[in-house]
Formats: sequence, structure tokens, C-alpha cells
Amino acid sequence: MPPIYLDNNATTRTDPEVVAAMLPFFGETFGNASSTHAFGAGVATAVKAARGEVKALVGAASDAEIVFTSGGTESDNAAILSALAADPGRDEIVTSAVEHPAVLALLAHLEKTRGTRVTVVGVDRSGRIDIAAYKAALGPRTALATVMWANNETGTIFPVADLAALAHEAGALFHTDAVQAAGRVRIDVASATVDMLSLSGHKFHAPKGVGALYVRKGVPYAPLIRGGRQERGRRAGTENVPGIVGLGRAAALATMRMAAELPRITSLRDRLEAGILATVPAVEVLGDVASRLPGTLAFAFDGLDSEAILFNLEKEGIAASSGSACASGSMEPSHVLKAMAVPPTALEGAIRLCLSRETTDAEIDRVLAVLPPIVRSLQEASPFWQERHGAEAGLPA
Amino acid sequence: MPPIYLDNNATTRTDPEVVAAMLPFFGETFGNASSTHAFGAGVATAVKAARGEVKALVGAASDAEIVFTSGGTESDNAAILSALAADPGRDEIVTSAVEHPAVLALLAHLEKTRGTRVTVVGVDRSGRIDIAAYKAALGPRTALATVMWANNETGTIFPVADLAALAHEAGALFHTDAVQAAGRVRIDVASATVDMLSLSGHKFHAPKGVGALYVRKGVPYAPLIRGGRQERGRRAGTENVPGIVGLGRAAALATMRMAAELPRITSLRDRLEAGILATVPAVEVLGDVASRLPGTLAFAFDGLDSEAILFNLEKEGIAASSGSACASGSMEPSHVLKAMAVPPTALEGAIRLCLSRETTDAEIDRVLAVLPPIVRSLQEASPFWQERHGAEAGLPA
Ligand SMILES: Cc1ncc(COP(=O)(O)O)c(C=O)c1O
Ligand SMILES: Cc1ncc(COP(=O)(O)O)c(C=O)c1O
Repeated sequence: MPPIYLDNNATTRTDPEVVAAMLPFFGETFGNASSTHAFGAGVATAVKAARGEVKALVGAASDAEIVFTSGGTESDNAAILSALAADPGRDEIVTSAVEHPAVLALLAHLEKTRGTRVTVVGVDRSGRIDIAAYKAALGPRTALATVMWANNETGTIFPVADLAALAHEAGALFHTDAVQAAGRVRIDVASATVDMLSLSGHKFHAPKGVGALYVRKGVPYAPLIRGGRQERGRRAGTENVPGIVGLGRAAALATMRMAAELPRITSLRDRLEAGILATVPAVEVLGDVASRLPGTLAFAFDGLDSEAILFNLEKEGIAASSGSACASGSMEPSHVLKAMAVPPTALEGAIRLCLSRETTDAEIDRVLAVLPPIVRSLQEASPFWQERHGAEAGLPA
Repeated sequence: MPPIYLDNNATTRTDPEVVAAMLPFFGETFGNASSTHAFGAGVATAVKAARGEVKALVGAASDAEIVFTSGGTESDNAAILSALAADPGRDEIVTSAVEHPAVLALLAHLEKTRGTRVTVVGVDRSGRIDIAAYKAALGPRTALATVMWANNETGTIFPVADLAALAHEAGALFHTDAVQAAGRVRIDVASATVDMLSLSGHKFHAPKGVGALYVRKGVPYAPLIRGGRQERGRRAGTENVPGIVGLGRAAALATMRMAAELPRITSLRDRLEAGILATVPAVEVLGDVASRLPGTLAFAFDGLDSEAILFNLEKEGIAASSGSACASGSMEPSHVLKAMAVPPTALEGAIRLCLSRETTDAEIDRVLAVLPPIVRSLQEASPFWQERHGAEAGLPA
């Protein structure tokens, strides 16, 4: 069996149809989007078509609301800095403790260098935001509330429409990092009334290095990157034409396939979850099981070391991860799971299995055949685990 | 004959070898650079190899000095903002009047919003910087001097080593926008002693949407985009792996072919220039002919309208442009040619023919067969031109 990829919240394979759509824009049609000659002809049209697909994916009202960027991190940074530039009387930010570093690292920097007041709202044991605390944090000086649509580590989906409404009641702008949600669950900026929304191509089968920021019409916008008049003056720099075309195609594919894929991926994920819960003791599903991305499954295997689980999965040709890709590189414990007050012994045994529309039934069968024995044998081999859980698992203590 | 592309200062065709190098990183090897499993294996190695190629292209001392970005504009913005953050006692910027908007638009914004003092040093009729004025502008409060390596509209190459030395004498940092130079002429940050240098892939046969910033070891650096710890914490965001691999391959190809291509392109350009000067009256070569990019040829056809020339070239399958792509979209007269005090009647008839290593002898033959008659017939058909130049050209007044 070919290797199985269950790390789709880190990044996804670029769809071959997306690659095919991009190819002409490296070669034959390589002109600048602003060039008027033959080599640029077709480029502006292709960029416009891609913008229309991204617009449709998020439910935007007009093309002018979509700004192409280099990815989710740039979009997040741009949204936050723009909101802070919008109104000198509003200089505070409200966010959640489980945002991606693309939000939290910038906010920490602004706090340190500019004295920006940042209120970080906590989450409960299931990763749900504390709405009362969020509401209390909003005030007349709040420039922006930024809360993600869905969390990358647990898949927890946030009540973005409610959060946006509360921010608006306080006169603040609302931004959402929808990098994990866009292209995977239905997103509608019209009904959620968010002012800005970030998305990133490589999370839904477009290439890395391209993303978008939705900016609602009428919302003040200050560019992060200045120079030429590309993107109606909102994002300078020669357009990444192949990337944008790829993003557009990926958005179109996501829109087209979502109705069929949502229930399919959800049922695969649920089967995987049920199978593991039925065969492995001392395991906890992380995140809000009532409101979760269809393809995300985060487990904490209390008393185990996630690296050992991943190593053994890898030997069987199964790729998964222990948290966000950034965090897994740095070996620091996940700030998301810490914010959820996951106890240290569980946190260290947390792994994330993330499906995509490329995940098959047979792959899930195989994971269900392989993962429980791996976990069981690690548990049996660990004196620490035996001490903690041996009795409850019916094993010799 | 297939269409002829002479707009290589706007953008270049992605080399088929570059596209081939990129392709595996969309499909088979699509993992994150920071992922540790099979799908990410090879990614970090490929990114490292690309970094080495870019390092070699610019003559950097170590891999850690190369930061991958989304392109030239981002690199320029990052360098300028970083320099302003480096030393609170230094808050002024010195630049030239002929920089790209990626520099000038940001500086105008900083002047307006932050009160940053920006001194814009003029150029002479050949586009050469006024060294005395540059020197006089540098002072104890200068944070950064930023002057381009080569100009995009005229190809004029600046004395970057001297300018860097003068900036350093004043205790300031020196940045150069080498977007038009990198991959086309030899660049050596060791001998030029620049502190930061911007380059962009799509100007030398890598794709759009990827570039780099060289930051000399020891130079303080503050990231423009914050989040994950990619690029040693200097540029957050999931790495554009295919783009970076493409940039690396393009850098390797440029390094490998430069010795052969420099004289070849120079002689093609010189033949084109000589052929036009010999057959067309009232034409001026723009820029510093003693110090110019090998592939750039900028002409002012006094009394003509560049759009008419381009339209007729286009009908013959020859793509060129009237200035920077941004400017040609906006129809505003070029700030570069204005800074050079090119008179309005010449400025309106300015066109740019830009070669690349893909330009052939036969293409230059064809342009020489086609362009002079086009220009002559426009001149003959223009009462305005007849009035100005008819006598000197030996035509009925
Ligand atoms: C001199 C110069 N600087 C900067 C840029 C901007 O680079 P990019 O197009 O990669 O944003 C360009 C070209 O567009 C350029 O010619
Ligand atoms: C929730 C979230 N926000 C932002 C990002 C950053 O996006 P990008 O990788 O495109 O920079 C990621 C993924 O890396 C993410 O999962």
C-alpha cells in the first residue's frame, strides 16, 4: 500500500488539476498581469476568473473584496495591522488563546513594541472560547477582534457569526483566520458578517505561497506591502499568476465537491474515531466534538509520548503529526492544548490525524488495523503508563 | 516566426528546467518543510539546496543570510522597515529618485504617516545618481540608504559599492534593490559590502511570487511578517516550497550561464541599438550607456507616441513596453524619465526593449527589419514630428 497521508492540517497535496491549470502561466502565458501585449493577454482574465472563484468560495459580494496574498500568515498580519491603522481612537485587540502563531506572534510583538493592549480570551477543556470573557473584553477602544474560524490542532469550529456580531456591537472590526476552514467547510462572509477573513491555498489543494484576504466593502484597509498598484493598491508586488490561478482552480474544485465530500470525510473521520475509542484505553478526543472540522481528529493518549506513536506509524507508512507543523519542529508543547488545560501527561501523547478529500476508505481501514496495536504495545511497554492506567485497562499493574 | 518577447524587465518566462524542478514539490513531495514524515522528507533538503544556490548567486557568506520572500516588493519593504526598527536614534532614509515604487511608495507612506524624513537624491540626464548630493544627505540620523543596483527602465547600473561605503562612513545601513540585476549581471555582496539586497525570481526565469532578501550576518533584522518560526524566525508563513526550489534552480542556471550569456546578450543589444540609431532620426538612447544592464535598451523617439510604436510592433508580433509595467498600466509618465529631465516630447515616445538569455540573433534581425520602418512611417505621418524634426531628417518641412 502506498504511504498514507493524514497530516492535511499542516498542508495538502496540490491537486493535479490545479497543477495543470497553473502550468500554462509559467510557459506560454508568462506575461505580467498588467502587460498589454500578447504574452500578458489572458493573464488578467485568468486572474479575474480566479478572483471570482475565491469570491464564490467565501460568499463575498464582489471581486474587489478579494486581495491575493502570499498565504495565510501574510493575510493574518495584514488584517491585524490594517485594523490598527483604521481609527486612532481604537488601539486594542481581542483574540483567543488558541490562535495560530500568525496571529499570536504578531500580537505579542505589537504589545511589546507599540504597547498595543491585547486581551487573550481563554478556552474551555473542549477548546471552546469563553464567550462571556470575550464580550467583557470588547470595549470602546477595541480596534479589532480576531478569532479563528476553526482551530488547526483540534478542528474546533468557533461561533464566528456570534463573535462578529458582538465585536460590531462594540464598534470594533472583526477578522477571522479561516485558513483551516476555507475550502473544507462552507464559509459565508455574508451571513457571518466578518469584516476580514484570511485563507491559504495549501490547506485545500492549491500550492503553498498563495492565499487571500477578504476585506468587506467599506472596511478601511491599509496595505501591508506597498509599491506598484497591483490588487487595486491593496497588495503591491507582481502578482503570483500561476499561484493565483491555482488558488482559483482549487477554490472551484472545493466549491464543486463540498456537498459530496463533507459527509464522506465526516463519516471516515467518525469511523476512525470510533474504532480507536473502542480498542484503546486511556485515550481522549480533543476539541469540541459537537463543532469540529469534518477531517480533523485529535487524540491525547495519556501517559504516552506522541513522538513514539508517530515513529511507529511512520514505519507503517502512515504520516501524521503531533500538533501544528511549527510546534512539531520546535518541540515545544502546544499552546493550544495548554490553553485547553490538557494535563501534561495527556498533552505529551497528543497526535492529530487529519483527512482530506483524497483520503480513502481503505486508508482508514489500514489506520484502524495499525494504530491500536501500536498504542497498545507502547502502553504495555511503559512502566509509567502501567502505573497510571494498568488497573483500569484490566492489565497487570 | 513566433512572437518575439522583448519585455524581460517586466517579467521573464519561467525556464522549462525550473518548472521541471518545481513539479515534484506540488505532487509527490508536497509536505511541509518542517514536517518530519515521509511526505516532508526531501523538502527541507531541497529548500536548503535552493538557499545555497541563491547564496552563491549573490556571493553571500552563509545560508543564514538568505531569507526567502514572496518577491522583490516584499523584500524591499522588509529591508526598509527593518532598518527603521534597528536604532531609535536613526530615523531618516536616503534614496534615489529613480527607485521602483516598491521603495518609493513605501517611503512616501512612511513620510506621511510616521514623519520619517526621506531624502530623495536626484539623477542626471543619463540617470546617474548625484553622488555629492547623496553624500550630503547622509548624516548621523540616517538609518538606511537604499539605492538600486540597476534601474528597471533604463538599465543604468549604480555604483553600489561606493554608495554602500559612503553610507557606512555615516554609520547608516545600506540596502540595494537588485531585482533587475540579480541573475543578469554578476553580483557580489562581499565586495559591494551591502547590508541588505532584494531580488525577485521572475526577473531571471524563476516563477512570480518568490524572491529573497539577503541580510548580512550581524545586521539587525526585524521581520515584516510574523508567525511561525520559518526562515529562522525572519519570515513567517509556510514556505513556498515549489517557488523556492524554482528560485534555486534559476539561480543555479544564471550562475552557470552568466559567463557565456553576458557577452552574447550585450552584443545583441548593441547590434539592436546601433541598427536603430543608424536608420532612425531624432532618437535618443536613455540611461548610462557606459554602465548598463546588458539586456536593456531604452529609447526616446522624440515627438512620437510610444503607444503607437508599441501597437505597431505588437501587430508584427513583437512585445515591448513603454516603461515599468505598473506605469504602463496607469498611463502616468515615468517618474524615472522625469527625474532624468527627459523633455516631455521625448518622454512620451520612450520605449524599452529588454532582452534575456532566450533572445536570439534571428529575433534581433527581425526587430531591426521591423522597428525602423514603423518609426519612420509614424514620423512621416505626424505633422507635429515633421514640424520639429522634418528639416534635420532631410524631409520636406
Ligand atoms: C527594480 C525593481 N524593484 C522591485 C520590483 C518588484 O519586484 P516584484 O515584482 O517581485 O514584486 C521590480 C519589478 O517589478 C523592479 O523592477
Ligand atoms: C489556523 C492557521 N492560520 C494560519 C496559518 C498560516 O498560513 P500559511 O501557512 O499559509 O502561512 C496556518 C497554517 O500554517 C493555520 O493553520
